[in-house]
Amino acid sequence: MTRLAIGVEYDGAAYSGWQRQHHADSVQGHLDKALGAIARHPIDTVAAGRTDAGVHACEQVVHFDTDANRPDRAWVKGVNTHLPDNIGVRWIAYPGDDFDARRSATSRVYRYLLIDSPERPVLLRDRVGWTFRALETVPMQQAAESLTGEHDFSSFRASACQAHHPIRRVDALTVMRYRGVIMVDIRANAFLHHMVRNIVGTLMAVGTGERPVEWVSDVLAARDRRRAGITAPAPGLYLVGVRYPLRFGLPGPPAGPVFAPAWGDG
Amino acid sequence: MTRLAIGVEYDGAAYSGWQRQHHADSVQGHLDKALGAIARHPIDTVAAGRTDAGVHACEQVVHFDTDANRPDRAWVKGVNTHLPDNIGVRWIAYPGDDFDARRSATSRVYRYLLIDSPERPVLLRDRVGWTFRALETVPMQQAAESLTGEHDFSSFRASACQAHHPIRRVDALTVMRYRGVIMVDIRANAFLHHMVRNIVGTLMAVGTGERPVEWVSDVLAARDRRRAGITAPAPGLYLVGVRYPLRFGLPGPPAGPVFAPAWGDG
Repeated sequence: MTRLAIGVEYDGAAYSGWQRQHHADSVQGHLDKALGAIARHPIDTVAAGRTDAGVHACEQVVHFDTDANRPDRAWVKGVNTHLPDNIGVRWIAYPGDDFDARRSATSRVYRYLLIDSPERPVLLRDRVGWTFRALETVPMQQAAESLTGEHDFSSFRASACQAHHPIRRVDALTVMRYRGVIMVDIRANAFLHHMVRNIVGTLMAVGTGERPVEWVSDVLAARDRRRAGITAPAPGLYLVGVRYPLRFGLPGPPAGPVFAPAWGDG
Repeated sequence: MTRLAIGVEYDGAAYSGWQRQHHADSVQGHLDKALGAIARHPIDTVAAGRTDAGVHACEQVVHFDTDANRPDRAWVKGVNTHLPDNIGVRWIAYPGDDFDARRSATSRVYRYLLIDSPERPVLLRDRVGWTFRALETVPMQQAAESLTGEHDFSSFRASACQAHHPIRRVDALTVMRYRGVIMVDIRANAFLHHMVRNIVGTLMAVGTGERPVEWVSDVLAARDRRRAGITAPAPGLYLVGVRYPLRFGLPGPPAGPVFAPAWGDG
């Protein structure tokens, strides 16, 4: 058996999420089947991050084991012919048998795209979160700074979260606006369930002026989900990529997506 | 009767094009019906540009006449509640009775988005044209320069084109790459049928190295459609906006869309 790693792009809009489930259409379900068609034996993939329903991935990293000896082309172009057009393999790599897409990851990079405009977005309707309330990004960025570093993120954790403990290390968290679209970039060693979307929803309350900048550090300190803001909607969230130790020889995370409609500023 | 102008954003993927047709789903068909529901009488709109099947608009400009006296909110938010989520009104204006969305336009701005990557795009599959062949944008830009100015564009005109004559004035034509996506921007007084897509297809043959830079001016001079390149696919094309004399008081064309996937360079 050889361990292979692949990078996978997908549009989460039509799926119940990454994870294979009975009676629900999942990204993993399609991918395992397509890989199995090339390997000619059942494949059970492990992903770096189990994204939720409606959440996208620019480069999800996945490993699997196979006896099948196929050229790289078969694992990329061949697998893609067996996938629907909203899922695609981008690269294949041979990281060695001690690689684990989930456990070997040193950090994950997510981007949240958010449009604040009086009218609903049309061309980007399944690609961004939307609020009709105007948002100020400067206080959002100031508030975001209190969340970097190692903290107990219980206030930003979904009740369904199955993680063993609520401590996570946020390496970077930035908020910026580009042509009418607010981009929230967050890199952490790992994430709790709904953590990015709960952070974005909380920062939104600061962006509208509903809450002061200092409120976000109070929410963090409270370790109580009821204190935080809303869960920002799934369609704005992208798993951009995953970092691993260099010895595995995998491509680094790509730059994040930039989806700006025509009618943004400048 | 009062003449109203509206700015309309749409995703062309699901439509047979702008123009209302029997037995086909058109943008105009939905818009006239939604405007009629607010006006409470039949509405027949006139658009600046009749986009083809699959072509998008960031800001199509449309006029119509009505006796109905409604607040601006009704013509925007009210109409939007009657539209499918792939069409949306962005603004309403009162340009006066001598305004004509098609005849008063002094120029139209189009952007073509094109991805050259070994694998098919996933997140942008209905938003860009795609070729697996690598393209060089510098020769494409050099070749594009021979198309600016007033010319007979017969070589870039679809056989179905109903225009009275083939002379058009191209004010600006630029080719640049941003994060893995090639953007072809073109502003002209008006366009022949398929003109942008035929220009892009022709520039692609220069970008791959198949044809030299000088070939494009030879194609133009030939005034023969058989000499030009392919018609680039519809999903990459956006009517960005329309320019009118300032006296009509309409918003200027917005900045063009920037849709870049995560995996582009830089």
